[in-house]
Amino acid sequence: MGCDLVELAVSGVRSLSPYLPGKPVEELAREQGLDVNAIVKLASNENPLGPAPSSLDAIERNLSELARYPDGNLFNLRDALSQKLAVQPEQITFGNGSNDVLVLLAQSWLKPGVSAVFSQYAFVVYSIAVKAAGAESIVVPARNWGHDLDAMADAVRDDTRMIFLANPNNPTGTAFSRDELTGFLDKVRSDVIVVLDEAYFEYVQDEEYPDGIALLKQYPNLVVTRTFSKAYGLAGSRVGYAVSSVEIAGLLNKLRQPFNVNNLAECAAVAVLNDDEYLERSRAVNKEGLQTVAAGLRAMGFEYIPSMGNFITFDTGGDALVYYQKLLEKGVIVRPVANYGMPGHLRVSIGLSEENERFLQALEEVKKVV
Amino acid sequence: MGCDLVELAVSGVRSLSPYLPGKPVEELAREQGLDVNAIVKLASNENPLGPAPSSLDAIERNLSELARYPDGNLFNLRDALSQKLAVQPEQITFGNGSNDVLVLLAQSWLKPGVSAVFSQYAFVVYSIAVKAAGAESIVVPARNWGHDLDAMADAVRDDTRMIFLANPNNPTGTAFSRDELTGFLDKVRSDVIVVLDEAYFEYVQDEEYPDGIALLKQYPNLVVTRTFSKAYGLAGSRVGYAVSSVEIAGLLNKLRQPFNVNNLAECAAVAVLNDDEYLERSRAVNKEGLQTVAAGLRAMGFEYIPSMGNFITFDTGGDALVYYQKLLEKGVIVRPVANYGMPGHLRVSIGLSEENERFLQALEEVKKVV
Repeated sequence: MGCDLVELAVSGVRSLSPYLPGKPVEELAREQGLDVNAIVKLASNENPLGPAPSSLDAIERNLSELARYPDGNLFNLRDALSQKLAVQPEQITFGNGSNDVLVLLAQSWLKPGVSAVFSQYAFVVYSIAVKAAGAESIVVPARNWGHDLDAMADAVRDDTRMIFLANPNNPTGTAFSRDELTGFLDKVRSDVIVVLDEAYFEYVQDEEYPDGIALLKQYPNLVVTRTFSKAYGLAGSRVGYAVSSVEIAGLLNKLRQPFNVNNLAECAAVAVLNDDEYLERSRAVNKEGLQTVAAGLRAMGFEYIPSMGNFITFDTGGDALVYYQKLLEKGVIVRPVANYGMPGHLRVSIGLSEENERFLQALEEVKKVV
Repeated sequence: MGCDLVELAVSGVRSLSPYLPGKPVEELAREQGLDVNAIVKLASNENPLGPAPSSLDAIERNLSELARYPDGNLFNLRDALSQKLAVQPEQITFGNGSNDVLVLLAQSWLKPGVSAVFSQYAFVVYSIAVKAAGAESIVVPARNWGHDLDAMADAVRDDTRMIFLANPNNPTGTAFSRDELTGFLDKVRSDVIVVLDEAYFEYVQDEEYPDGIALLKQYPNLVVTRTFSKAYGLAGSRVGYAVSSVEIAGLLNKLRQPFNVNNLAECAAVAVLNDDEYLERSRAVNKEGLQTVAAGLRAMGFEYIPSMGNFITFDTGGDALVYYQKLLEKGVIVRPVANYGMPGHLRVSIGLSEENERFLQALEEVKKVV
């Protein structure tokens, strides 16, 4: 090139390291010459049941609409969700997955000269979004792999505009209680936006676990994000959302790309939102699988972090990448978390019972040869 | 709120006016109590043929994948597109529609203190993306409703980092020739990114019309954007892309959200990309419809801007919003362009022949009572 155009780019963008997704099944099949059907993917915290039949029916009924732009206001999904959550339609901001909403939040309040607080081992998209906006990240050391909320409140500086909390946290599976959350919110300045990422909300079955949306009236600086990618089985469709005050949603909706949620995704999400049977089945399969995988890991002597999500992160006791590679060779895809500063750990998503067994068996074989 | 959180937001974001999409059919049906099937929507430059059967087949075959995340690298679509366009796979950046790619470009090079150049009447997303990035817009007066490329080259300042060109331009339908484009590119500094938006590329049937991708080797500061939303009939799926140097694509891919294109969209796009029969039919229906609508407008005495796209923008000779409203009452949705500084004009998309006739008949009736 005549001159280096990349050098002229915004510095926050130049400094980014792209997100590392779980390895797709097809990619492993190409690389290892394996049959797609022989591969078990437990790498991306997807719903192992596959999509809800109610979602698929809705898509099939609406296929002819594919040449039409989506409804930019998402009237149908907004209406269904506002009723389900008992919030005003104007409190909701839709995103192309909750990733999109997290990025919109960062872009709206962060810039060079301000800072954002999040925890060590927190979901890596927070750090990417903060860096892309040119702001400074304040990373607070974790306590028992989870958020140290007291230390996070203390870490807030005058120039802090946003805090990211994940409950439960990915990739560690840790969660905090209602009392811990409200104690934290009481301590945080009202001009700091607190983003509470509840991507795994639907999986948690614990009386002490808080519903962030119930706290919005009390804390107008709170923004709750959720997704259809996990318990609702629509990771491929890309639908996430934020619930906040009407004022915050109004700002986010100015920045939001008007067609960031596609039209098949909208109808699939409306259908599954009221499919209680599918959600209950998803939760039950996950609960049983969590117990099976935890028991299997214990039996083999691996330490793991107790998880409230649909995954477990465990300590290989050695170089996790060696385990990861050897599991790949056996057709089992899990997720390395070295990019989270956890080079000895692997994260495994909860699958169907036969997938969990395949994983445990493969791990046992790998353990013998490492 | 305890303090005004919106006041603390990034100023470029606060100043945004959201994009105004075409009115969805369902929305008009709700508002006017009309039957959905009685409404003709010619408001969003969609493909009136509906989606390609090849796309629908591909989606149906892949429905079971909906609970899986998309392939973040879009291996299959990248492979198909790089072969079709005879470019390297690494030259392509995918977006959630080309809107997404345009925003990524602005975010990567624009910031407070720098400027971007585009034409009067150019696609409104350029101005939104520039403003959101906090940069200054330099709007160059149009010549005969189209880009005045000489004046645009002269408008470039030392602090200019990006120029947006649309060929053809939406909403005016004007296009410039290969010689005009290369003459312009020869004049522009090599450290200014020239974004050439070819969203309507597939519709143009003119020997003088340039293929931007063929110019990439000669002009490393050129970035060409295209979409599957128009001639390929996938507006609801959200797939657009940029083709550029490998270096520019590498930067854009750092900022791109990893799953910005959903998995059904990817397989639908792969299928239609090689569906030459559908593309030819789309072009033929559009060519015939353009002639019919132009002739109808002429017969009624309306002046229109000759168009290379799949739409025509015409002068109502009065207040276009009055025409727009009265057409809505008759179940015909077109697009006001007052937000482009064209308060007397309306943009009508080319539909199927019966839709074009419905529009012309409704316009004739409205004309009598206005």
